[in-house]
Amino acid sequence: MTYPTKTFNLPVLEGLSEKQIQVHLALYEGYVKHTNLIVEKINALKASDADGNAYLIAELRRRFGFEFDGIRMHEYYFEQFEGGATASDINSALAAAVAQKYENQGLEAHIREVAGSRGIGWVVAYADPRGNTLHTVFVNDHELGQLAGLPVMLALDLWEHAFMVDYVPAEKKNYIDAFFANLNWSVVEKRFEDAMKMSAA
Amino acid sequence: MTYPTKTFNLPVLEGLSEKQIQVHLALYEGYVKHTNLIVEKINALKASDADGNAYLIAELRRRFGFEFDGIRMHEYYFEQFEGGATASDINSALAAAVAQKYENQGLEAHIREVAGSRGIGWVVAYADPRGNTLHTVFVNDHELGQLAGLPVMLALDLWEHAFMVDYVPAEKKNYIDAFFANLNWSVVEKRFEDAMKMSAA
Amino acid sequence: MTYPTKTFNLPVLEGLSEKQIQVHLALYEGYVKHTNLIVEKINALKASDADGNAYLIAELRRRFGFEFDGIRMHEYYFEQFEGGATASDINSALAAAVAQKYENQGLEAHIREVAGSRGIGWVVAYADPRGNTLHTVFVNDHELGQLAGLPVMLALDLWEHAFMVDYVPAEKKNYIDAFFANLNWSVVEKRFEDAMKMSAA
Amino acid sequence: MTYPTKTFNLPVLEGLSEKQIQVHLALYEGYVKHTNLIVEKINALKASDADGNAYLIAELRRRFGFEFDGIRMHEYYFEQFEGGATASDINSALAAAVAQKYENQGLEAHIREVAGSRGIGWVVAYADPRGNTLHTVFVNDHELGQLAGLPVMLALDLWEHAFMVDYVPAEKKNYIDAFFANLNWSVVEKRFEDAMKMSAA
Repeated sequence: MTYPTKTFNLPVLEGLSEKQIQVHLALYEGYVKHTNLIVEKINALKASDADGNAYLIAELRRRFGFEFDGIRMHEYYFEQFEGGATASDINSALAAAVAQKYENQGLEAHIREVAGSRGIGWVVAYADPRGNTLHTVFVNDHELGQLAGLPVMLALDLWEHAFMVDYVPAEKKNYIDAFFANLNWSVVEKRFEDAMKMSAA
Repeated sequence: MTYPTKTFNLPVLEGLSEKQIQVHLALYEGYVKHTNLIVEKINALKASDADGNAYLIAELRRRFGFEFDGIRMHEYYFEQFEGGATASDINSALAAAVAQKYENQGLEAHIREVAGSRGIGWVVAYADPRGNTLHTVFVNDHELGQLAGLPVMLALDLWEHAFMVDYVPAEKKNYIDAFFANLNWSVVEKRFEDAMKMSAA
Repeated sequence: MTYPTKTFNLPVLEGLSEKQIQVHLALYEGYVKHTNLIVEKINALKASDADGNAYLIAELRRRFGFEFDGIRMHEYYFEQFEGGATASDINSALAAAVAQKYENQGLEAHIREVAGSRGIGWVVAYADPRGNTLHTVFVNDHELGQLAGLPVMLALDLWEHAFMVDYVPAEKKNYIDAFFANLNWSVVEKRFEDAMKMSAA
Repeated sequence: MTYPTKTFNLPVLEGLSEKQIQVHLALYEGYVKHTNLIVEKINALKASDADGNAYLIAELRRRFGFEFDGIRMHEYYFEQFEGGATASDINSALAAAVAQKYENQGLEAHIREVAGSRGIGWVVAYADPRGNTLHTVFVNDHELGQLAGLPVMLALDLWEHAFMVDYVPAEKKNYIDAFFANLNWSVVEKRFEDAMKMSAA
């Protein structure tokens, strides 16, 4: 199988320059390219000498999580801007779950708090159909610390490449402001609803 | 919220002693205990001095993935033995997806191949509703390399504690034989079907 | 170059069975074998098509730290038992550095404290010639969290394979007792002295 | 103990702007600050309730490698520019070791090859007194994959913050050119010689 490079229908963004987005999309394309390269190389190594190449194949497969998560996390990221910024819906299923989990703090403030974690990676909010709740964590790189089995609802990229065309690291807060200024909350709310259908199964 | 310790309704297992399972379940309970400890400590630190404790809180949260995945992966693991061993269903949706992805190799043989990866961790097979397929990877520890956003379908524990009551590391293959001798494939097939409902959303 | 498999001149150990040591030494030999395999595979891939194999080569090299550290950490570990248990020397340079860093707690008690960290890995005590001190940390697996550039002085293996022939995980404390009962402190003291010579350079 | 913030006596650099260096040095200072914060927090937690805070203390200690390596790797990095660019000495002990290990490729070309590894981190060249050689690897983040016990000889920072003030990720090669244009090889050669004194001990 071949992983496709998706095209995102992005509006003009506030506080994120066109060059910043171009640089970022080029990196996204690198994850697609290298995920496909892993698949291609594993197939070739298996076809030529599966036993003799077993260690090589295993190490390529160990790296699959980095590249594959590099694709998916960027898909989650860019799709959140499609359709343009919309406010969150206080009557959504997500709003109810957030009120129960984060009480007065709210989800945006909670994500801003988690974004203060040191290092590069992502703030990820997940739907948890099994626990009937949501979780927000900091994931290092793309693949270190992902919550097992949980659909991703919101992904805030905190790699330096996500903002350093427009900001220096000391201005990370401005980048996070820009992220929320452009966020289409209805995308997030729909992901939550879709994910929670699994619990009824 | 408090994470519950689940009880698994396990039959007598072939090739896995009662002592092995007791030792393993005690470790599972440690993940529940420490996940709850993280939540409790974060709440207490926020209540006493949220700003002064921000670094501490962030580092506890960074570790959440390890403990939480420690819970969930073990839930996936033990639940697979509930109901007793059943053969896989060649007419299942999973069988069709496997035939497309792994062709003649089949899922069990593919998992055995991935289980040859060095290091401790898990072989994890995921349903991928977005890609309309499945993936099988090796995850280090519990949380390093999990595929982002994908429901877990099958989890083979390859930590040394999963087998060293009964086997030495050189006999890991015998443990994997025991795993498959006890696997209730219908649990795996149902997880796949439930997960794929997300794609229709 | 080929990495050699070292032979350790081990006395009869207290609280660690002959079978436990045999199982552990066999795993050590696996690290030597696979470190050499990485070198061999990289050489072959470069010779056949350096550019076309660049990704493969990079992923093998990324894994080198795991296998190489697997060799070295086990060398540090087993060498500490050679010559048999000896008490620590209160007049050693190490004793002076420990008194300054850990005060009344002492190094053994400090290591026991760090050994309470969750997860598998090592307690490692390092000499720090640049800082004129020592550090004790928990390293995950073999290679995650090693202090950069610092000579290793003491290595306590806390992988489950290090003790599960003789103990279950709940008895880890007994294994640590056995470790200290067999430790030749003069090996540790000499490593510290050798390392600190770098600072005079 | 308190870790000091070092001052580096940097010349005007070719291909690295003053702003780039200022941004980078500010991040270095963050590692010093947070290493000291870990020490301070651990001490306070131990003083108030060592048993009740054991998990918190362990998680702070687990993160020590990231912050401490963040200090040391940046010290190695900036010190390499002090004194200004000098050519490598073909009669040095390092040159002899390089000829044996990397043959015709040479160290600079080898480092450039390793720098092609994907992800953020460092190319690190180590002296290996025990093996009487050198090693060059890619270390993820600051602390993932460091070779155990080996003195660092050369450190090439490949975090995005090291170059994104001046370059976009697609121009990483230009940054690496700048790194080598400014490198004082005599610093690297001296580190190698100092480290190899340990082998004679």
